[in-house]
Amino acid sequence: MAKRITPRSEDWARWYTDVVTQAKMADYSPVKGCMVIRPHGYALWENMQRVLDRMFKETGHENAYFPLFIPKSFLAKEAEHVEGFAKECAIVTHSRLKTVQADGRATIVPDPESALEEELVVRPTSETIIYAMFAKWVQSYRDLPILINQWANIVRWEMRTRLFLRTTEFLWQEGHTAHATHQEAEEEALRMLDVYASFAEEYMAVPVLKGVKTEKEKFAGALRTYCIEALMQDNKALQAGTSHDLGQNFARAFDLRFQDEAGDWTFAWNTSWGVSTRLVGAIVMAHGDDNGLVLPPRLAPIQAVVVPIWKGTDPVDRILAAAREARDRLARAGIAVRLDERDSLSPGFKFNEWEMLGVPLRIELGPRDLEQGSVTTVKRPNRSKAPVPLSGLEERVPQLLEEVQREMLEAARARRDAATFTVDSWDGFRERNESTGGFLLAHFCGSSECENSIQEETKATVRCLAFGQPEEAGRCVRCGGPSPRRVHFAKAY
Amino acid sequence: MAKRITPRSEDWARWYTDVVTQAKMADYSPVKGCMVIRPHGYALWENMQRVLDRMFKETGHENAYFPLFIPKSFLAKEAEHVEGFAKECAIVTHSRLKTVQADGRATIVPDPESALEEELVVRPTSETIIYAMFAKWVQSYRDLPILINQWANIVRWEMRTRLFLRTTEFLWQEGHTAHATHQEAEEEALRMLDVYASFAEEYMAVPVLKGVKTEKEKFAGALRTYCIEALMQDNKALQAGTSHDLGQNFARAFDLRFQDEAGDWTFAWNTSWGVSTRLVGAIVMAHGDDNGLVLPPRLAPIQAVVVPIWKGTDPVDRILAAAREARDRLARAGIAVRLDERDSLSPGFKFNEWEMLGVPLRIELGPRDLEQGSVTTVKRPNRSKAPVPLSGLEERVPQLLEEVQREMLEAARARRDAATFTVDSWDGFRERNESTGGFLLAHFCGSSECENSIQEETKATVRCLAFGQPEEAGRCVRCGGPSPRRVHFAKAY
Repeated sequence: MAKRITPRSEDWARWYTDVVTQAKMADYSPVKGCMVIRPHGYALWENMQRVLDRMFKETGHENAYFPLFIPKSFLAKEAEHVEGFAKECAIVTHSRLKTVQADGRATIVPDPESALEEELVVRPTSETIIYAMFAKWVQSYRDLPILINQWANIVRWEMRTRLFLRTTEFLWQEGHTAHATHQEAEEEALRMLDVYASFAEEYMAVPVLKGVKTEKEKFAGALRTYCIEALMQDNKALQAGTSHDLGQNFARAFDLRFQDEAGDWTFAWNTSWGVSTRLVGAIVMAHGDDNGLVLPPRLAPIQAVVVPIWKGTDPVDRILAAAREARDRLARAGIAVRLDERDSLSPGFKFNEWEMLGVPLRIELGPRDLEQGSVTTVKRPNRSKAPVPLSGLEERVPQLLEEVQREMLEAARARRDAATFTVDSWDGFRERNESTGGFLLAHFCGSSECENSIQEETKATVRCLAFGQPEEAGRCVRCGGPSPRRVHFAKAY
Repeated sequence: MAKRITPRSEDWARWYTDVVTQAKMADYSPVKGCMVIRPHGYALWENMQRVLDRMFKETGHENAYFPLFIPKSFLAKEAEHVEGFAKECAIVTHSRLKTVQADGRATIVPDPESALEEELVVRPTSETIIYAMFAKWVQSYRDLPILINQWANIVRWEMRTRLFLRTTEFLWQEGHTAHATHQEAEEEALRMLDVYASFAEEYMAVPVLKGVKTEKEKFAGALRTYCIEALMQDNKALQAGTSHDLGQNFARAFDLRFQDEAGDWTFAWNTSWGVSTRLVGAIVMAHGDDNGLVLPPRLAPIQAVVVPIWKGTDPVDRILAAAREARDRLARAGIAVRLDERDSLSPGFKFNEWEMLGVPLRIELGPRDLEQGSVTTVKRPNRSKAPVPLSGLEERVPQLLEEVQREMLEAARARRDAATFTVDSWDGFRERNESTGGFLLAHFCGSSECENSIQEETKATVRCLAFGQPEEAGRCVRCGGPSPRRVHFAKAY
């Protein structure tokens, strides 16, 4: 914990890794590409899960659980889908290990006699297995809609991994629904996109663009992919959630049909939508600073920490008693509060440590505070201090936490807006992309030729065709062809 | 839902499958040995998770998440451990699928070029990977204890599977702790055994024996395995949870050492403990009847259902209004309540359906009830009816639910006690085991020779050496050798 964090300006990637590891959110594991989510990171994910789970249930969804393994023939049934996932999947081929003698010593190897008839893929996503089950459960329009969510682990074989942002195994939720009409499915996909956007802004304090992906960027097997896109402090974009209108693609592949009111058999319409532990990385990169993590109060595992301060001659007992009382009163008021009673550490050391862990509000209680019947509160993001009378603690602390929550969203929005640029020429695009990065609002003809060449030359991709982007005829920044409105480009995670 | 459930007396195994599938708790999947947990089953598991998670946190544990994959060399480091799990594990050998032409058509196969340097085992349990990480985190006695829990999916390749009771993939929690002394580890293992026993009795309404496993039955790699054992209605035992004192076995294998206060390096002491979705099956088999599921109120996803009753000429509107008001009032009082407003189905059909789903309390509201300003409550387990005045609904319904909870535990305990038999001769053992089954309290010399021959001849195993079993010198039921006290034998799931 005492190690120095690399400043953001010096090396952004190292800053990120330093914060994630030193705040004990995650650690590298001996399994290539897989991380360990440590308690301080997992507690944040649990809080995110709890809020999202409530939002899913309020919109009518139920949780269920489907197998980890997908027979390879299932993946193959939807052509684009297998194309999208075949190159990065963990494949189970055997069911037993045996000991053999090799070079005079015993080693264990997969037992050839246990080779599976059909190899199994560890789920890279669960459309195939889930819609195969829906097909078993649905006969009539009365069985629709099916509104299901699954909390699960996912494996996609990644070559270059980064803690939380891109790992071979990650945790996520995947919603899967089936509907009688395309309109209903579209409404569902957009409803869940709104849920994600609300969650990002109201809980993560991360402002997001809502929009639709280009054909090139859409999910393998989807008709249309909606997404929310955020901007990190290094001005790179991060896709924070996706919601897919799958049309009837998977219903056709898995014979998911129903009898409509007229008695005719029709394929159902599906949606799927997901967010993952990647959002933990988004919180780190959207709010963190050179002192460590900065967590939004509505999701922080520890919202406030009471740090008593005394010196040799100070009235230790009275201060500790007052600090404990403050802790107890705040806990009773529903605040996730900790008291740091450790007597071998200086206040300054403790301040640094709790700042590193991102606790939104520090409550200092020293001899002078006690004399005045108050505490000193310090907001984590900007370190602004304010005295709060002990008598008004339960009332004022929740207000301060809500202030921090609001200020974090405002600051993130201001950063994003300051890093959103209108560019009108190819030179301007490249220069801006090189110099500062950020969202580049540019005209785009929509051709995959231009999309590909822009990506090849600048690494910037179309993040989304944002909703509400005004109609404005213009010329494609790459080829000069006609464009009906600007789209958001950016380099992305 | 309209299908008949096989009566228990006719075919116990089919009764179980009928209840689990017709109550839509789980379904067979196209993946061999893997099941789908449907919303009604998953909601029960979620409630169990919520209670257990609170109990774990109250005893000082934090949640974390470790990789799904375990390098095969890790499994091999603890000799008994690999011996115990090598024969039933899913092995990942490749990371990519490719399309090949075979017999004139395209098929996808694992790409030989993607063969892994070291094969990975899908975790059958996580001691190895977790203690390898602990070794990285622990230097000093000040870093101990580590008290961690993980909610995860587990894979053990099972040949003969049964929904919830034995499946290739299942969900569970696994606690893993590290301590500075053996005594602390023992206390932890016993503390968590107590947590499991309290959970089983107070929430699942399933009485359990607490005890220790024989050497033969202990966990592969443990010093000692503690367990809770329950008896199902077919008089077979079910191991409902285990807590292991791992000694220093894994600490030695993974070099998990710390510097003690004197500055000496010592191996840490570990415990692990787990319960799984198997407990869902235990609830089904401990309480279910020929009408379906019977759920304990403290865990039931739906605790009470309001069924309005009307006929052609009855005052439908008034009854529906009263039923909705009852539903709203109970929901505000914190009861998980549903109102069955469906107008195309008869009350009798609805009764059957909610009984099948195991809802602990039915609340009927018909014209005569309304006239008298009351409802008729019906307890699921014994169908006992009682009128409850509408004015006292919020007060009386929670009491009735607690009555059902208590009555279920009492009934289960009475069944278990009636099926616990003292046997003193080998003939008596075999006859009792054949005729009724149940717990057989018999003297046992402790030799693995007797233990094995008893199992071979009768399929009964030592379920546990129960705590509190009185000292009572006797002669082994098998060989006549000396025995200090009786142990519990039974055939088991």
